[in-house]
Amino acid sequence: MYKGIPASSGIAICPALVLPKKQFQLEKRTIQDVAAEKERFHQALAATKTRIDGFIEAARAQEQTESAQIFKAHRLFLEDPELISRVENQITQEKVNAEFALETTVNFYLDILAKSNNAYFRERATDLRDVANHILQFLAVNGPQIPQIKEDCIIVTDELTPSDTALLPLDKVQGFVTEVGGPTSHTAIIARSLELPAVVGVKKITPSVQSGDLIIIDGEQGLVLVNPDPDTVEGYRQRQEAFLRQKKELFSLKGLAARTKNGQTIKLLANIGGPWELPKALEYGADGIGLYRTEYLFLNRETLPTEEEQFQAYKEVLAKMEGKPVVIRTIDIGGDKNMPALNLEPEMNPFLGCRGIRFCLKNKALFTTQLRALYRASVHGQLKIMFPMISSLEEFRAAVKCAEEVRAELIAEGHSVSGRVPIGIMVEVPSAAIITDLFAKEVDFVSIGTNDLIQYTLAVDRMNKQISHLYSPFHPAVLRLIKLVIDQARKGRIEVSMCGEMAGDPRFTSLLIGLGLESFSMSPSALLAVKKQIRALKNSTAKALAKKVLALSTAEQIRAALEDKEERSDSSCGS
Amino acid sequence: MYKGIPASSGIAICPALVLPKKQFQLEKRTIQDVAAEKERFHQALAATKTRIDGFIEAARAQEQTESAQIFKAHRLFLEDPELISRVENQITQEKVNAEFALETTVNFYLDILAKSNNAYFRERATDLRDVANHILQFLAVNGPQIPQIKEDCIIVTDELTPSDTALLPLDKVQGFVTEVGGPTSHTAIIARSLELPAVVGVKKITPSVQSGDLIIIDGEQGLVLVNPDPDTVEGYRQRQEAFLRQKKELFSLKGLAARTKNGQTIKLLANIGGPWELPKALEYGADGIGLYRTEYLFLNRETLPTEEEQFQAYKEVLAKMEGKPVVIRTIDIGGDKNMPALNLEPEMNPFLGCRGIRFCLKNKALFTTQLRALYRASVHGQLKIMFPMISSLEEFRAAVKCAEEVRAELIAEGHSVSGRVPIGIMVEVPSAAIITDLFAKEVDFVSIGTNDLIQYTLAVDRMNKQISHLYSPFHPAVLRLIKLVIDQARKGRIEVSMCGEMAGDPRFTSLLIGLGLESFSMSPSALLAVKKQIRALKNSTAKALAKKVLALSTAEQIRAALEDKEERSDSSCGS
Repeated sequence: MYKGIPASSGIAICPALVLPKKQFQLEKRTIQDVAAEKERFHQALAATKTRIDGFIEAARAQEQTESAQIFKAHRLFLEDPELISRVENQITQEKVNAEFALETTVNFYLDILAKSNNAYFRERATDLRDVANHILQFLAVNGPQIPQIKEDCIIVTDELTPSDTALLPLDKVQGFVTEVGGPTSHTAIIARSLELPAVVGVKKITPSVQSGDLIIIDGEQGLVLVNPDPDTVEGYRQRQEAFLRQKKELFSLKGLAARTKNGQTIKLLANIGGPWELPKALEYGADGIGLYRTEYLFLNRETLPTEEEQFQAYKEVLAKMEGKPVVIRTIDIGGDKNMPALNLEPEMNPFLGCRGIRFCLKNKALFTTQLRALYRASVHGQLKIMFPMISSLEEFRAAVKCAEEVRAELIAEGHSVSGRVPIGIMVEVPSAAIITDLFAKEVDFVSIGTNDLIQYTLAVDRMNKQISHLYSPFHPAVLRLIKLVIDQARKGRIEVSMCGEMAGDPRFTSLLIGLGLESFSMSPSALLAVKKQIRALKNSTAKALAKKVLALSTAEQIRAALEDKEERSDSSCGS
Repeated sequence: MYKGIPASSGIAICPALVLPKKQFQLEKRTIQDVAAEKERFHQALAATKTRIDGFIEAARAQEQTESAQIFKAHRLFLEDPELISRVENQITQEKVNAEFALETTVNFYLDILAKSNNAYFRERATDLRDVANHILQFLAVNGPQIPQIKEDCIIVTDELTPSDTALLPLDKVQGFVTEVGGPTSHTAIIARSLELPAVVGVKKITPSVQSGDLIIIDGEQGLVLVNPDPDTVEGYRQRQEAFLRQKKELFSLKGLAARTKNGQTIKLLANIGGPWELPKALEYGADGIGLYRTEYLFLNRETLPTEEEQFQAYKEVLAKMEGKPVVIRTIDIGGDKNMPALNLEPEMNPFLGCRGIRFCLKNKALFTTQLRALYRASVHGQLKIMFPMISSLEEFRAAVKCAEEVRAELIAEGHSVSGRVPIGIMVEVPSAAIITDLFAKEVDFVSIGTNDLIQYTLAVDRMNKQISHLYSPFHPAVLRLIKLVIDQARKGRIEVSMCGEMAGDPRFTSLLIGLGLESFSMSPSALLAVKKQIRALKNSTAKALAKKVLALSTAEQIRAALEDKEERSDSSCGS
């Protein structure tokens, strides 16, 4: 039994499918156009050089002289005339694809290295292999290779990227186990959006599991059981059924309003990471999209998405939401995301670095392209634009200036643009929360991004396992900041919503309504559970709870108060 | 002319001394004890293994598989029986020191590699050289080698570490120019404490300057001029004289009280990075030590300081301050500091990682040793203990529990311990600032650490040049948080001080007094300039200024208001 971090609830009982590290398409193909194939090879060489130069710069910036030297040695391979001409000759003479020619050539050298009497030279083979893999990666079509999946399975891997996920046949996947990540990692977010159980941060699980091993995931407890005995399986089958029954119960809320017992209607919006999450948002009756993350358009690719490509994506979501509001967040990149097309500078503290609006204001061409696509799409639905990582009024004004310029430009070009596109900000940097009153005079709406807000307020990297226990939405300072934002936004008569994890956590629903929040945006899969809380809620109870909780001093006391409340509300609901 | 970040004011005109990258003592020495020398060699091998294992883990944690493989290959050298026995044989047969034997052996292999026909193998030489350098580093006495300095000079280097600084003959150094670092980097802090001009973050300066080149540093403008023409030198000589005249004027304030025109006395305390800064603190009439940083005891060494070593250091400062308060901060380490003895896990975002009190609560033995040394020293002066990076009441309570246990233990052992050692916290995490009212019920004092507080509040890594322009003490949210801390501390009747850079910046003196701050702790070199501000100040002016500034919306407006104010106050002072 392995213990990890519970990331998405539910129970799965299924054979494992262990995803290997990235592999490449090495099959031999006959090619027609020799010149084109050579050109393809040289482009991959050039791309690899750029990548390795990036590693060298990164190592230098961090003063890791030794690493820089190593990467420099790596780069020599790319300029080795003997290696290059061997590959070219094979392409020309045998009319084979570049991957195959490279692999053959590399194997030829690896053989020589392996036969060396010197352990050191033998080990140099790994360097050559690495460089070759970089080239193969650039030769390969975008994205890693996922094995053919024909049976139901639980994915076991080190970490899933968004592009990995996009390639998975999701109808077969019953759950996720990953070695890396915390409760707000990509895998966790994806799993919750798919309503599949997931356990993340399970150290050293991949070497311990074979594809085909029977696995149980307990997404509530964060447990992974490998080849459990039949009694255990039977116990978990019963728990799985109970879980599904409860879920079905929630399904009965689908058509009902999100209204408190006193008749206050709460807006329930969906967070989506891409158009593929729309169907669920619609099925569960979202009142709109409160956060449409646009990073998926930029991730794991070598070139930037065009204006047209972005326009089509935004238009699709706006059109499918049929006039309901759609808040699209401009790209929120940071050093933690894999965006080869952007050539990001590595940073010592990427979470405190050049990300979100900071990056956009430094890369105006990229920002302008996205804004053009957004405004062009604005006529296809009710668009709202939201800027991430805003920390000051100056940044907001600079971003709005870009938006206004783009809008005027489009109109001058004869495009039709919606007459009213509200512009708002994520409140996720503490400074923005603290001056909500000032923002309220200039923005159309704010949305509280609790994940980052908590991270910065507590100075805790939520992905860092050494200290992730300190990351707590129950911390009294977090709740005070949230209250401040809600109070000041209401006072300034602007819309305030919340789109961080807290918004979709039923333990906070009553408290947040008690604090005056009337709009929640969350993973589609959380909508019904939150609606259940709302429908069982008396406004006076919510207000009393908020008052009680704000008087408490520690995260532990607050957690106890909220979890106790939730239990009581649950039981009263069942009676 | 090169433009960098102004880090410490003043002008220096002097030949450059370019400090090379670390080198090692490779001279041949005859040794007596062959067994001891071999043991020394094996200890260095073992230490290098540990270091490289650390690199491997770091690379793995960041999923840099290729780097991990490279470091693994490096480690093979350390286990190469041929290499090891060659070194041992030379030590035994020639009775030479381990450094010399290793260097000879490595050169033997490097020769073979250099003669290879294969470019790749030739380049493998750098790998071997790197590994050898690691071993030599561990063989060398602590710290890097600083060339003999006999004439006045300006140090030009990539970055100075605290241990580099400790080895410099400071009477000869007239200024600093570094490639790395921002206004609050180590070099900047050291330069200000030494009252030497410094310009940091000057990209690519070291390859452009030769030792002996005449250099001008303008610490106000952040300029470095290399081999300027005689007219320029003459112009700067005049400005240098004017600067020194002004400084002399400040010296006349040495014996005078830090009292406003209305008779309010302000406490002026000193920040020190080690006992060597005490003389200046005393000379400039500090009312005590408001922040004694203890990291220097742990930096750049392979073993931890003993309780006795720490006790002697703390005792020295307490005794020399002759009953004036000394606030000693327990060790505040993070992933950005070089502490080989601690085997720190590399982190993705070290500033949001396991640092300060978080690290201490995870490394109780280290924490307990420091607390024992502190309490034993407490009878030699007026000690106050301060915990860094506190983000919640729970953390403070856990730290206090450790302190109380240590205290009881010492008494049980028969040590004498002061009856009253106040315990306080740095307020540098936004969450701590926000719940100052709750802390006020449990702590004896708080000290506002503005550097980190600003960094977290604005989510800006101040060392990251891409975004360092966003790091601003003038941000209205920062001022509101500071006001909140001062108000709540005063309401809770606990002492409140400030020990970040803002406390020593004369532009903020009037504002902070207007906000109710009565205790400032700063670099000794800033004491007189702040005192000058205080003596020229009417309390009504300070209050009006605070009111005016708090009504402003942007950092730019606030900066203008404060700099305008300063100019007016300066001119009124000169009239």
